[in-house]
Amino acid sequence: MTYCVGILLKDGLVMASDSRTHAGVDNFAQFCKMSVFEREGERAIVLLSSGNLAGTQAVITTLKQRANDESSKPNVWTATTMFDFVTLVADAVRDIGSRDAPHLEKSDLKFDASFIIGGQIKGEAPRLFRTYAEGNFIEAGGGTQFFQTGEAKYGKPIIDRVITPETSLSDATKCVLVSFDSTMRSNLSVAMPIDLVQYENDQLKLSRRRRFEIGDPDFSSLSRTWSEGVRSVFRQLPDVRW
Amino acid sequence: MTYCVGILLKDGLVMASDSRTHAGVDNFAQFCKMSVFEREGERAIVLLSSGNLAGTQAVITTLKQRANDESSKPNVWTATTMFDFVTLVADAVRDIGSRDAPHLEKSDLKFDASFIIGGQIKGEAPRLFRTYAEGNFIEAGGGTQFFQTGEAKYGKPIIDRVITPETSLSDATKCVLVSFDSTMRSNLSVAMPIDLVQYENDQLKLSRRRRFEIGDPDFSSLSRTWSEGVRSVFRQLPDVRW
Repeated sequence: MTYCVGILLKDGLVMASDSRTHAGVDNFAQFCKMSVFEREGERAIVLLSSGNLAGTQAVITTLKQRANDESSKPNVWTATTMFDFVTLVADAVRDIGSRDAPHLEKSDLKFDASFIIGGQIKGEAPRLFRTYAEGNFIEAGGGTQFFQTGEAKYGKPIIDRVITPETSLSDATKCVLVSFDSTMRSNLSVAMPIDLVQYENDQLKLSRRRRFEIGDPDFSSLSRTWSEGVRSVFRQLPDVRW
Repeated sequence: MTYCVGILLKDGLVMASDSRTHAGVDNFAQFCKMSVFEREGERAIVLLSSGNLAGTQAVITTLKQRANDESSKPNVWTATTMFDFVTLVADAVRDIGSRDAPHLEKSDLKFDASFIIGGQIKGEAPRLFRTYAEGNFIEAGGGTQFFQTGEAKYGKPIIDRVITPETSLSDATKCVLVSFDSTMRSNLSVAMPIDLVQYENDQLKLSRRRRFEIGDPDFSSLSRTWSEGVRSVFRQLPDVRW
């Protein structure tokens, strides 16, 4: 399984992905699910993959190969809006889906590749999208500030409770890490390392990017401080009256 | 959908259920999912239902009718251990399942009735069980202190983080209410009223039982205090280093 989160705030974006892929409990592996398309001063875009690894890898590789092909335009480096960028991803998803789905269906499997895509292209504000395996997609805003994919339920309450458009990038980043910590404690199919990006409006470069490996002391400290804090909030809650 | 929780602690039990049943978003209703079999000084047992309402209602009614039938022994009032009590529930689940499943299958539906069953019969310590639609069941203990049914994922992290066998009944009760609050904020298919029971070892009666209706001021206050507390914990967390 997978856990990916992207949050759009007034000040920018926070995005993160786990690294566990598996086909049954006896066949799991570590793959980075974060892909970056960045040209400083011009575009900074992050894709978080979920679904079948063969599908998502093929989509990312297709996007990169098409960018090297002079005759293929627009591509990920020339798209002038995030909407156009995401449409390119959707096209690649549909191409790979058309190629793979008939073969997967023979084994009763479904083609499954979806992405959370956030970033900024010069001339626009930062935007956040979520694509589906069918290639259609939605954009955050107007009430919904974040997208999750994969094992989303465990880590949703803390985001629902804390995040508003006005939340600072710093608080939203901590919230995302707590959301990952909660998910990993409750579900074995989501696991470190965590890839994390914090993007500030109009920077047009990804200067705040970090990978938290297993046993990362900062992550462990955050997890411990959070658990202690939560327990102390319990002690402050009024007892139930009967 | 449904959300039910039962927790077994050194000091006793905490159990709670929501009240929403639905078949599609345009067909939802309110039903109490908590059933009690109590004879003061002798037995105090709580069942939390989840699954298809027709199935769970039929199981509970069958248990009650069989208890009125002199020839049907043991029954819910004469079972001398919780294991025997839960076996009676399992028998009823299988009887209703055998009756209903063939007809449900014609509409591509599955028979689904499961229960969290907690309580104490004089002569034993309190025990906690969880039955499946097939009538088999498991008992809490030896590392797993709680069972959830229905929309369990949203409310699991807070229980995972807070509950140990040593947690006080009072703290566990607050934790269960926060778990419900988190679930209801994130999922429309779980809703008030919440039926809550706190059972202290060897009381052999359910003196601490409460229903939280929509808008209950104590529940609203707990939810608000919790949210504020959580946000203050965020402010105390160290900022992420990049």
